Amino acid sequence: MQAAHQPPMMKLFAMPMGAGGHIAGWRHATAKPGLIHEIDFWQEIARTAERGKFDAIFLADSQGFRPVVGRDAFSRLDNMRMDPITLHGALAVSTSRIGLIGTLSTSYNEPYSAARRLATLDHISKGRAGWNVVTSTSENEAHNFGRDAHFGHAERYERAGEFIDVVKGLWDSWDDDAFVIDPASGRYFNPDKVHGLYHQGKHFRVAGPMTMGRPPQGHPVIVQAGASEAGLDLAAATAEAVFTSHPMLESAQQFYQDLKARVIAKGRSADSLKILTAIQPIVASSEAEANAISDELTALIHEDVAISLLQMSLGGFDFSGHDLDGPLPDLPPSKASQGTQKRIVDLARKENLSILQVARQVAAGRTSKMVNGTAVQIADTLEQWFKAGAADGFVIAAPILPDMLARFVDEVVPILQERGLFRQDYAGTTLREHLDLERPVSRYALDPELHQEPEIWKNIF
Amino acid sequence: MQAAHQPPMMKLFAMPMGAGGHIAGWRHATAKPGLIHEIDFWQEIARTAERGKFDAIFLADSQGFRPVVGRDAFSRLDNMRMDPITLHGALAVSTSRIGLIGTLSTSYNEPYSAARRLATLDHISKGRAGWNVVTSTSENEAHNFGRDAHFGHAERYERAGEFIDVVKGLWDSWDDDAFVIDPASGRYFNPDKVHGLYHQGKHFRVAGPMTMGRPPQGHPVIVQAGASEAGLDLAAATAEAVFTSHPMLESAQQFYQDLKARVIAKGRSADSLKILTAIQPIVASSEAEANAISDELTALIHEDVAISLLQMSLGGFDFSGHDLDGPLPDLPPSKASQGTQKRIVDLARKENLSILQVARQVAAGRTSKMVNGTAVQIADTLEQWFKAGAADGFVIAAPILPDMLARFVDEVVPILQERGLFRQDYAGTTLREHLDLERPVSRYALDPELHQEPEIWKNIF
Repeated sequence: MQAAHQPPMMKLFAMPMGAGGHIAGWRHATAKPGLIHEIDFWQEIARTAERGKFDAIFLADSQGFRPVVGRDAFSRLDNMRMDPITLHGALAVSTSRIGLIGTLSTSYNEPYSAARRLATLDHISKGRAGWNVVTSTSENEAHNFGRDAHFGHAERYERAGEFIDVVKGLWDSWDDDAFVIDPASGRYFNPDKVHGLYHQGKHFRVAGPMTMGRPPQGHPVIVQAGASEAGLDLAAATAEAVFTSHPMLESAQQFYQDLKARVIAKGRSADSLKILTAIQPIVASSEAEANAISDELTALIHEDVAISLLQMSLGGFDFSGHDLDGPLPDLPPSKASQGTQKRIVDLARKENLSILQVARQVAAGRTSKMVNGTAVQIADTLEQWFKAGAADGFVIAAPILPDMLARFVDEVVPILQERGLFRQDYAGTTLREHLDLERPVSRYALDPELHQEPEIWKNIF
Repeated sequence: MQAAHQPPMMKLFAMPMGAGGHIAGWRHATAKPGLIHEIDFWQEIARTAERGKFDAIFLADSQGFRPVVGRDAFSRLDNMRMDPITLHGALAVSTSRIGLIGTLSTSYNEPYSAARRLATLDHISKGRAGWNVVTSTSENEAHNFGRDAHFGHAERYERAGEFIDVVKGLWDSWDDDAFVIDPASGRYFNPDKVHGLYHQGKHFRVAGPMTMGRPPQGHPVIVQAGASEAGLDLAAATAEAVFTSHPMLESAQQFYQDLKARVIAKGRSADSLKILTAIQPIVASSEAEANAISDELTALIHEDVAISLLQMSLGGFDFSGHDLDGPLPDLPPSKASQGTQKRIVDLARKENLSILQVARQVAAGRTSKMVNGTAVQIADTLEQWFKAGAADGFVIAAPILPDMLARFVDEVVPILQERGLFRQDYAGTTLREHLDLERPVSRYALDPELHQEPEIWKNIF
């Protein structure tokens, strides 16, 4: 697997969720709860991650809530979300180097708006935008957008593929050198270097061009997380970074090998897609202390919250009538993420867990890799996984915010730097440069035959 | 009209368009062209306006281009736009007091996304967001969203009315005091204080609730500009600030009286809607110098650009075959803004202008009030219009950016302040406070019978 480790540096994303990556993290004595709407909180997170030379800050999203078992179980904040692209607009000018990855669903957006919003973020951050492409899977999202049900699995991914293609086409509307900006002649741009898109697909019809110039990165970085066959296929074709979760090294290695092979099969280089796996670190001055914090967090999870989260993770499977102390029953294919369901079933079978036990594990984040220990122990684990070909990098989901992220930055990052595993400082200014990804050449430069004049010059009203 | 002038202070919005409010402003020697994508430029504008204690910075938008006559005529930048809400995200943390009004169309957006984006802006700016509600009128916008043509006039406004109602309902999803945030009990919020919307209308079906708490202002400020019957009716019912353009005092007064009467007829107080009219100031050390700058700008307008803009302003009326030195022909009802068409026809008839002459006037911005002169002369005009019941305030469309805005701030604003016409400093922290608008009470507080439990607690997947 050594060849897959060019470039040799690991990549790090910070993923702040609500007031902490652990479902009960906000209840911990060291957390700062109540700050989900406060920009100062998000600025602190972003600046801390940038101080740690992280590649990016990753903001999840959902345009609606996932269902819950019981209204009281819902008294938690992991589903509370502000709009990530607008929030990243603020973070863009609160930081100067860190990448800004925002989630935007292909199911409940239009590609023209999405292209503009992401391009705007790329412009105002001077080349630091990333787009986490998701297809939405909760019924409440569908109900917020005039639909009775969410799109089926195949349709969702088909729509996503077309959506990404349209967005990239719009980003290419203006050649990199289209802008002349010559006050003397009155020429602001060269009209020969602007392209109509005239996309006519199954899901979208989009004429173009975009209302602003090509993003500094050419295309903001495409990030995905799908683990189903269709999701992996789409990622292999289009993603530049994939975010995954594996509690165990072996499954991470298998996923890594499988996805890199799919990327190569698509005619791409293995390095053109970085794989980052989620880590939930508890950094303490001793392993015992870290385990104590972990136990404390688990004890703070309400049973209803645990069952609710398990049900949600399994696409709505209803556990009422089941003995919660009995084993996980055989499950139908998930209506949500099939990859998540597989990891949960694997975990339950391997460790022989009851429904309630697996629910608590899921709620505690056990579908990602939990590492409790000293900074050296955590650095050891990351090094082991990185060198074993389990990941090109890690998504750090600090269980308690902002403190556990700060401890990771101040204690673990310096060790990774000393070992030559992580950058001492940013070498470039764009997210693409941080991730060692090439800047995409415009489709119109690759194939000038594609050029069509924009309709806006045809005097059609 | 005196009664309409409580509060006594005039309101000021800054409206930066491209690289200047004048179509050829970017070509002027004192302009900084080439900065449309540069966040530093927008930050400078916003900070300058905030230094001048402006109520708000107003960002226009269009999700596509308006058609143009001839591809060369299009080599201008007034239609180049980044996404205003994302850009305002950056400006929110680059400023601390000024309001941030962003344009968002009800034709090519979904209310759930719009509500979230605007609420996010309100949260991160701590209560400074405004929403300029527009209905889109260009075919190219329609073609970017899978439609063959834009919505008809009546349908557009019907959709806009329903859209605003849904957005306000979503903003009310969470009571102001819904958040408990009690780590000890694990209660983040009180589930009794969250409301499902279950809107089922002609254009939208939206279940709710929103994924974040009520915006700091309750509702971001609703701004509109429609001048058609349907537009005025919608504004009278829902707008809190209206942006209009009148080259002549009399038409501004008539508009002001008419709209305030409509507001009262809707059962609202006259003060609950502020009327701001556009001003294009050229501030110089003498009137002769200001007129020279104005002539310079007019001379920089290309004939094709002028005709193109006239055609665009008249909803696509085709002037090919017409003698450009002849009078403006009788026009059919505009497919775009009927208010704009009326103002153009009035101007041409009153001053007996040829097609080309009126085109140059339109291109130069003559549908709004142009004021060339010394700071004292400009302050005199604003005072006259304000006291004559022509406007509650002004939208300053500086023809050359950033310099002409800075001159207005540094030279005109102090005179208005000395005369007691404009605030010395911000009294409050929110846009509503700047505009002397009340914070809306939630619909669920006004009528508790409206409460319905959110579907997300009903265990529906």
